[in-house]
Amino acid sequence: MPVQNNQIFVRTTGKTEIVDLTPQISREVKESSVVNGAVTVFVPGSTAAITTIEFESGVINDLRKAIDRMAPEDVYYEHNERWGDGNGYAHVRAAMIGPSLHIPIVEGKMTLGTWQQIVLLDFDNRPRSRRIVVQIS
Amino acid sequence: MPVQNNQIFVRTTGKTEIVDLTPQISREVKESSVVNGAVTVFVPGSTAAITTIEFESGVINDLRKAIDRMAPEDVYYEHNERWGDGNGYAHVRAAMIGPSLHIPIVEGKMTLGTWQQIVLLDFDNRPRSRRIVVQIS
Amino acid sequence: MPVQNNQIFVRTTGKTEIVDLTPQISREVKESSVVNGAVTVFVPGSTAAITTIEFESGVINDLRKAIDRMAPEDVYYEHNERWGDGNGYAHVRAAMIGPSLHIPIVEGKMTLGTWQQIVLLDFDNRPRSRRIVVQIS
Repeated sequence: MPVQNNQIFVRTTGKTEIVDLTPQISREVKESSVVNGAVTVFVPGSTAAITTIEFESGVINDLRKAIDRMAPEDVYYEHNERWGDGNGYAHVRAAMIGPSLHIPIVEGKMTLGTWQQIVLLDFDNRPRSRRIVVQIS
Repeated sequence: MPVQNNQIFVRTTGKTEIVDLTPQISREVKESSVVNGAVTVFVPGSTAAITTIEFESGVINDLRKAIDRMAPEDVYYEHNERWGDGNGYAHVRAAMIGPSLHIPIVEGKMTLGTWQQIVLLDFDNRPRSRRIVVQIS
Repeated sequence: MPVQNNQIFVRTTGKTEIVDLTPQISREVKESSVVNGAVTVFVPGSTAAITTIEFESGVINDLRKAIDRMAPEDVYYEHNERWGDGNGYAHVRAAMIGPSLHIPIVEGKMTLGTWQQIVLLDFDNRPRSRRIVVQIS
């Protein structure tokens, strides 16, 4: 079975918006007809990240607050002084969470837990159009 | 060589217990007869994570303390208010560390460092039976 | 196409030095002749990590400061008391950021964003010679 490359396009509000990508990725896994394999979810860009979480608005807000504490928007960033775009915190958050996720496919389905969703975190300080690479093999 | 899907089952105490999975995964890599390939270690569920660390009880406690500081158990979590299960911190920690790890296999062995072990972190606030997917290809 | 295993050797100063690996990895991807596939970047060792960031000295310093706040060098570490090597903070940081990155290759190129570079973070408290495994498949 050759590698299958798909893309998802998402418009975000930025400002640590968290978007559930699971329905689209699940559909692509199903349409790929891969029975035993894996899916890689990768976000190109240096101000966004990929992880998994229960997509429930309470805990989504909790995650946003924890990330705010880890890399606050309002501390001093050299990046902002040099480039004036005010999104230094977004770069730092993205590097700490990471842009990539690799999930096994077993018997035609991703091995996610029942309450475990794949999410995009867009840390930038403005709305963005994001492309997510979904590679199935 | 086809994809080989294995599973490890672990009983944990929860409460950020950290479990060394390396002996079992190394055995599965050996039994797979894969010479050049990779292993994916993935934990289904939204309150656990996978990473590597030197499995030495001092630094294991140090990691637990650092994660406690990053997402403390006793701050306010919306998740707890809505669902009453008290494990909001566990969801947040799991999302920040991540559920997946991908390790090359070269000449029949994982390319881990000498003091680098693969660990499960179970952040839930109660004992759990965990299934870890170990995919070798 | 068989799996291709390459290595990169880097001398670092330690102390959370952040090194851009992108030029070397891009060259290896090009020389591999893989058109549709993926690259895994993995650092053996328990005091270093791999992630992506815009390799711009301002935001690199910002990331170092954020990681310093997350796992400060000067808090108490059990690891230091037991082993006397003073690098407990390095182990904790490495476990929190993670040693592995998986990036799709589409049409012969990694799907990195324009300002997104692959970096090694060496957290150890002394200069190190690091080997990074670059697996292309």
